Amino acid sequence: MSVLVFEGFLSTPEMLQVFDKTAIVQAIMDFEASLARAQARCGVIPTAAAQAIASLCRAELYDVSALVEAGGRAGSLALPVVQKLVETVALFDPVAAGYVHWSSTSQDAVDTSMVLLTRRALRLIEEDLLALVGHLLDLAERHPATPVLARTLMQPAQVSSLRFRLMGWVQPLLRGLEGLHRAADEALQLQFGGTVGTLSLLGDQADAVAAALAEDLRLSVPEMPWHAQRDRWVRLGSELGVVCGSLGKLAGDLSLLAQAEIGELAETQGVGRAAPSAMPYKRNPVACLQALAAAQCVPQRVAALLACMTQQHERGLGGWHAELAEWASLLMHVHGAARPMAEAFSGLQVFPARMLCNIDSQRDLVFAEGLVQWLAPRCGRQVAQQRVEALCVRVAAGEAPLRVLARSLLTPESRLDAAGLEAVFDVHRIAADADARLNTLLPRARAQWLEMVDCPHW
Amino acid sequence: MSVLVFEGFLSTPEMLQVFDKTAIVQAIMDFEASLARAQARCGVIPTAAAQAIASLCRAELYDVSALVEAGGRAGSLALPVVQKLVETVALFDPVAAGYVHWSSTSQDAVDTSMVLLTRRALRLIEEDLLALVGHLLDLAERHPATPVLARTLMQPAQVSSLRFRLMGWVQPLLRGLEGLHRAADEALQLQFGGTVGTLSLLGDQADAVAAALAEDLRLSVPEMPWHAQRDRWVRLGSELGVVCGSLGKLAGDLSLLAQAEIGELAETQGVGRAAPSAMPYKRNPVACLQALAAAQCVPQRVAALLACMTQQHERGLGGWHAELAEWASLLMHVHGAARPMAEAFSGLQVFPARMLCNIDSQRDLVFAEGLVQWLAPRCGRQVAQQRVEALCVRVAAGEAPLRVLARSLLTPESRLDAAGLEAVFDVHRIAADADARLNTLLPRARAQWLEMVDCPHW
Amino acid sequence: MSVLVFEGFLSTPEMLQVFDKTAIVQAIMDFEASLARAQARCGVIPTAAAQAIASLCRAELYDVSALVEAGGRAGSLALPVVQKLVETVALFDPVAAGYVHWSSTSQDAVDTSMVLLTRRALRLIEEDLLALVGHLLDLAERHPATPVLARTLMQPAQVSSLRFRLMGWVQPLLRGLEGLHRAADEALQLQFGGTVGTLSLLGDQADAVAAALAEDLRLSVPEMPWHAQRDRWVRLGSELGVVCGSLGKLAGDLSLLAQAEIGELAETQGVGRAAPSAMPYKRNPVACLQALAAAQCVPQRVAALLACMTQQHERGLGGWHAELAEWASLLMHVHGAARPMAEAFSGLQVFPARMLCNIDSQRDLVFAEGLVQWLAPRCGRQVAQQRVEALCVRVAAGEAPLRVLARSLLTPESRLDAAGLEAVFDVHRIAADADARLNTLLPRARAQWLEMVDCPHW
Amino acid sequence: MSVLVFEGFLSTPEMLQVFDKTAIVQAIMDFEASLARAQARCGVIPTAAAQAIASLCRAELYDVSALVEAGGRAGSLALPVVQKLVETVALFDPVAAGYVHWSSTSQDAVDTSMVLLTRRALRLIEEDLLALVGHLLDLAERHPATPVLARTLMQPAQVSSLRFRLMGWVQPLLRGLEGLHRAADEALQLQFGGTVGTLSLLGDQADAVAAALAEDLRLSVPEMPWHAQRDRWVRLGSELGVVCGSLGKLAGDLSLLAQAEIGELAETQGVGRAAPSAMPYKRNPVACLQALAAAQCVPQRVAALLACMTQQHERGLGGWHAELAEWASLLMHVHGAARPMAEAFSGLQVFPARMLCNIDSQRDLVFAEGLVQWLAPRCGRQVAQQRVEALCVRVAAGEAPLRVLARSLLTPESRLDAAGLEAVFDVHRIAADADARLNTLLPRARAQWLEMVDCPHW
Repeated sequence: MSVLVFEGFLSTPEMLQVFDKTAIVQAIMDFEASLARAQARCGVIPTAAAQAIASLCRAELYDVSALVEAGGRAGSLALPVVQKLVETVALFDPVAAGYVHWSSTSQDAVDTSMVLLTRRALRLIEEDLLALVGHLLDLAERHPATPVLARTLMQPAQVSSLRFRLMGWVQPLLRGLEGLHRAADEALQLQFGGTVGTLSLLGDQADAVAAALAEDLRLSVPEMPWHAQRDRWVRLGSELGVVCGSLGKLAGDLSLLAQAEIGELAETQGVGRAAPSAMPYKRNPVACLQALAAAQCVPQRVAALLACMTQQHERGLGGWHAELAEWASLLMHVHGAARPMAEAFSGLQVFPARMLCNIDSQRDLVFAEGLVQWLAPRCGRQVAQQRVEALCVRVAAGEAPLRVLARSLLTPESRLDAAGLEAVFDVHRIAADADARLNTLLPRARAQWLEMVDCPHW
Repeated sequence: MSVLVFEGFLSTPEMLQVFDKTAIVQAIMDFEASLARAQARCGVIPTAAAQAIASLCRAELYDVSALVEAGGRAGSLALPVVQKLVETVALFDPVAAGYVHWSSTSQDAVDTSMVLLTRRALRLIEEDLLALVGHLLDLAERHPATPVLARTLMQPAQVSSLRFRLMGWVQPLLRGLEGLHRAADEALQLQFGGTVGTLSLLGDQADAVAAALAEDLRLSVPEMPWHAQRDRWVRLGSELGVVCGSLGKLAGDLSLLAQAEIGELAETQGVGRAAPSAMPYKRNPVACLQALAAAQCVPQRVAALLACMTQQHERGLGGWHAELAEWASLLMHVHGAARPMAEAFSGLQVFPARMLCNIDSQRDLVFAEGLVQWLAPRCGRQVAQQRVEALCVRVAAGEAPLRVLARSLLTPESRLDAAGLEAVFDVHRIAADADARLNTLLPRARAQWLEMVDCPHW
Repeated sequence: MSVLVFEGFLSTPEMLQVFDKTAIVQAIMDFEASLARAQARCGVIPTAAAQAIASLCRAELYDVSALVEAGGRAGSLALPVVQKLVETVALFDPVAAGYVHWSSTSQDAVDTSMVLLTRRALRLIEEDLLALVGHLLDLAERHPATPVLARTLMQPAQVSSLRFRLMGWVQPLLRGLEGLHRAADEALQLQFGGTVGTLSLLGDQADAVAAALAEDLRLSVPEMPWHAQRDRWVRLGSELGVVCGSLGKLAGDLSLLAQAEIGELAETQGVGRAAPSAMPYKRNPVACLQALAAAQCVPQRVAALLACMTQQHERGLGGWHAELAEWASLLMHVHGAARPMAEAFSGLQVFPARMLCNIDSQRDLVFAEGLVQWLAPRCGRQVAQQRVEALCVRVAAGEAPLRVLARSLLTPESRLDAAGLEAVFDVHRIAADADARLNTLLPRARAQWLEMVDCPHW
Repeated sequence: MSVLVFEGFLSTPEMLQVFDKTAIVQAIMDFEASLARAQARCGVIPTAAAQAIASLCRAELYDVSALVEAGGRAGSLALPVVQKLVETVALFDPVAAGYVHWSSTSQDAVDTSMVLLTRRALRLIEEDLLALVGHLLDLAERHPATPVLARTLMQPAQVSSLRFRLMGWVQPLLRGLEGLHRAADEALQLQFGGTVGTLSLLGDQADAVAAALAEDLRLSVPEMPWHAQRDRWVRLGSELGVVCGSLGKLAGDLSLLAQAEIGELAETQGVGRAAPSAMPYKRNPVACLQALAAAQCVPQRVAALLACMTQQHERGLGGWHAELAEWASLLMHVHGAARPMAEAFSGLQVFPARMLCNIDSQRDLVFAEGLVQWLAPRCGRQVAQQRVEALCVRVAAGEAPLRVLARSLLTPESRLDAAGLEAVFDVHRIAADADARLNTLLPRARAQWLEMVDCPHW
């Protein structure tokens, strides 16, 4: 049962490993082992029983595929895992077998397992997001005052700077990392409530056992179980969706800028990313492809998580199971967007000459607004606007670039100076001005990044 | 790389097999073998080359996992499969190697493979849908004139019949089967267009090769390639979504009727569907659980397919890949809803006594509208309405059931007859009347079902 | 209460009119008038009563805003409408008031109203889809053998023809029209089942009344009411989603081709579609903007419809109401995509010179596959491939276009003829070949379009 | 153009008012007035011009419907609003007209307007969420140690307490309020970047103008414009989705508990929420209906927002416009879920007797796990389990309730005491124990609520 080839394409081998069936079964067993230890520590079950149980909580001892198959029919993977664990413990220590999974419910085990695996998954995502941000910051630092066309509504608009564009990509990723940290701090909690959330079987010792269990697993304890109240969990899922949206935006922009007809940026052609043999010259933006595809799946995953929140009563019918099914693929896809972007930008090719050339091919029309602005103090804004529009018509008719035609404005009576006019069309000045707006932001972003790199959150 | 345990739970082993990685690679190789044969038949490539190629198109000869891994990086699974096939053919027949995948593009191979696998997947779905409909028809035939509460807005409304309810579930499933047949007839087409859809390398022979290839694969030939025009494909996906919606409706109703407090129906407790050991008495509706969970994922899958339709130019960047990733799981989940429902209804437990009892517990308020209707001809509708409402208030106050209080209407001057009044409250008459509305529909549905069972569509 | 400015932007004034509050109230009253007439015709209610009722079923007599407000609180718009109608009829004819809405339920009225309005909405959509297809066919007929770059994965791939591209857009739209016709034929049905679908109050006359009512409204009668079985309705919704996907694909392609840096097509600059005053030269593709935005909302609407299918029991709680809320905006957005595309293509600007220029700027690399194909018969495919790849490397290094370097292959011993080589690079031949593949398709599409134009479906 | 009746049903009159067309146009004008004032304060434009502009920024002076219609065609509502403002100002002060909208871009105006309106919308939502939480806390305080059935997988599981259930609903709502505060603090920022985000026309004064403008509008200034980087905005949208999920969960639970067959809770029958006249006795849970319907639309809205994040370049084509269209309806639906829930719980009917009765009807099977737990120390858990299962079989066969059969365990040799056995079945003890787990949580929640009530966030 090794499925979902094409879904796997939109992820990474490392992430597929995190949610591998053996890893999931092991995580459930980690919960059971910790539970036994915690209850022994609190005097709820005998220490010897806990030891017997914990020693057998090793997935490699079991036929994981069979457990998974049985879990499908039973409606919860924890049911066959616990049953098999009971049977196995009973072979060695029949009394201890009676204490397996004591006071807990199958959803406790599965939810906590998913928390443990999600923590691991977030580590992977954080790593690649940080790598990506690092590359973007490198590029921003390496390319000061580099003029680029800024485009709005898919048409050239005005001139900006490469650094401005790069920092526009950086900021949401840094915010996304903070968002993930915050959402995960809230969501990565122990699930432990017993059959209906009240831990009634544990009586006075409920809090102590919960605390010990959480400590053993390095998780925090929620005020109440969250069997059917998934808000914190789905909030983390939504945050992943937002991060993936920012990655999709980045990939989309890169793919547009890498079009042969624009050619301002190009992703590294990584190993194994060969062009099709029929078109050896072709530079397919495969990293963008993967990130865009992953980003296209993710909004629907988040919608599914949100729709699954209406779980009935103390523990729901179907909603939880649908959420589980969506959860892993959400994390998979987010990593499936982050990793290729990190790779693409690790060796991004930048073509500043092409950037200038694209600006030039607009025949200076993108400076029209600046020209109005420069003229306005002399003749009023409306007159300025009219004059510039008249010039633009002539530019559009092919007469000459705007900077050439604009020289006609320099009549003696206009009291306009030629240097000022040249400045209007000075792309390097404009780019430098755009950079200047980031004077504090860039070092601040670098510092924030450094801090995150030094202290990984998970 | 065997992933997605919880997504697999919302499917079936047979369906997971259909989209297994080996099955996908084999399907790509089936395309390549057929292509070679077709081109040989048309004289485009040497017959010996075709034979050499076809003889090596067997997935078991290759390291499928390695191919899948390479496919992820390459952006298309067909790239490494074709490359490996070229290398392998070259070992035996270097000339033939030159004709592997001749004139085709990787998307031709992958799309056609998905068509072939989807045909297989639809067979599985059809089988279980037909089984389910068969069980529902059996029940409808077995339970004539059986009174049940009809409920609206989650509250008891009036009396209907079990058969009426059952046929309400049957009809959308039959329509769904027809819809799948129709949509699949349009969608299960050859993909064959070469690099940009024009098959330019084949010149005059393009049509002949396409026809021969389609014949070899038992597919029809579309007017134009559908590399980036996915409407027929997504229409099939939407139809699957609609079918799954009808299954979700059925599962939802069953789960509501199976609540212990209502207890009118219960699903069979199948093998492996044990209650949790902590609650041995508990009858968890696990089939409903699976169907509901699957049905909760599917609308989002359809949304993803629709969103992916905006694929760029001749072949898109990311949209196609996202669609591929969603496609298999869509089929998986639809089967993951159909199968458990077929199982649940194969041995459905029906409790007619409980149905009567639930009607009784409404203290005849559900007959109020019928009582108005019976009174109206005698005293006008408004007066009738007022009288009945007055009685209802007394019922609600706990005085007596409506049928008892209604006898006070039988004054001599009223010219109302007691037998007519009794008929108003006769649940068996009401149920029989409801059944009567299905007199032609039920046998027609049975006939339609028989025809489908006799001639499976795929 | 006139809301949703930005949602309205993604629609058209005509469509907003169709689902205007007065139109909805009138449609409900149309149902009530027809119901009264039908029941009179069948002898269920007095003819005079029917006349009294029908004469007052005119929305302009009522405070529509107040009805709408009351409907929100009541949970169904039909409740206050019917109540107000009863009160008003009672002013003139107290007996007739007793027969208002007789035997029906509020969902009968609302669903049937939505069917009537949807029929009107589909007419608008059909009109603009046909206009759009007409423009595309005009363009296809007007531009034979026009070479264009075909692009895959957002990069230039090979040469194709403008007609091939245009027909690629036409086909899904024609299929979409057929799909809408088919889905609407099934979905535009009478809703008439009474409180729980059995029409029990009408006894033997249920069928006759249903038939008369359907005839009056020119609708067909379903086998069973579809209060909680929404498959046909949602299937129509999905079909609208598919059509919108094809429109989104078209708008996306147009916006890409209209980028200043590509400049092969441009939409007409319609009235009121001024450039922002700050950038008078800028040609914002506003029609694409609207179509793309509408197309981005629609997949989620379809998902919502599918998710709403799990309506409980005989009539559900919330699912129906959510579906109603999504339905109008689905139709609005589909028209909001169709109309601007029809406008954009009505005066589409085509720049064949720019198309050639874009091909040229690829320095013939897009002919590499054709060159291999031409060489292969002489030297074997592998050798051919190697030689061409070597040439491509030199092209990429800036030495010369491929056609120039390829002349080195014409050694005397190669037995290759110069004319054949030139043909490989002949864009007009390639475009003509691509056109040739549409020789039967184009006239067939035109004929199909003509037929649809002559006989509008609704 | 007053549309979307059924979408409006899933909202509230107050919220429809917030996003009314006049309100939107006024908000845009508020931005323009503030911008003029801010630029005057910074010496960028003459003070007199600012006064002239600001004095005409009053929506009631204009034909709002015409502006909205023109906005649809122009692709942005700000374009006609600004144009009309320029024209109007020019009538009075031609020079001032030249300074309208100076240095800004239409998206600046629209985004900032939406921020201002969203702040107002969040106030409404907060109000009703706080009211709802208040009612839930009241109920929790008023009903100590009240036994209720806890249900899992839609079947009775064990006994819990009403307070435990109530606090399970309270917690996510409090977290949701916190989440909204936090997300809004980040998202409710000024949008001000000029055409391509760099504010290049303002030169050195960009920061000063931005600060003055933000101060005037009581908003914070982001590090960079967020024209095409919507992460903070969509994060707020997601948070609204999470809140709505928690409301949907609450509404779903209430509708299940209000089923006539369960009857543990019932919503108040508010004014205007009449039962249909055909069924005067029927208590339709209309508040649940509205909340559930709204909650069913919201996940798709969030998905749309996430999907729209891939906006191109400096300002995108369509994605922004689609986001705008979804945004208002998201807020509308969230309030459309919060308000009816607040109403439903303001006078919630609680039926403790029915709760006990529902427990009783389970014939003590829901105490089986507790019985095992009590027996285990005496005879080992496995033996205990077997004995209890044997008893459960007899209960299920109808012999007697478990508590009766369990007395057979009290043999002299068992050393089990009768009091202990009775305690196992003591629902009041169990309910009290469940309450005890909330000893610190309930007062803490009340305190947190009080603090929020005292200091509304917006």
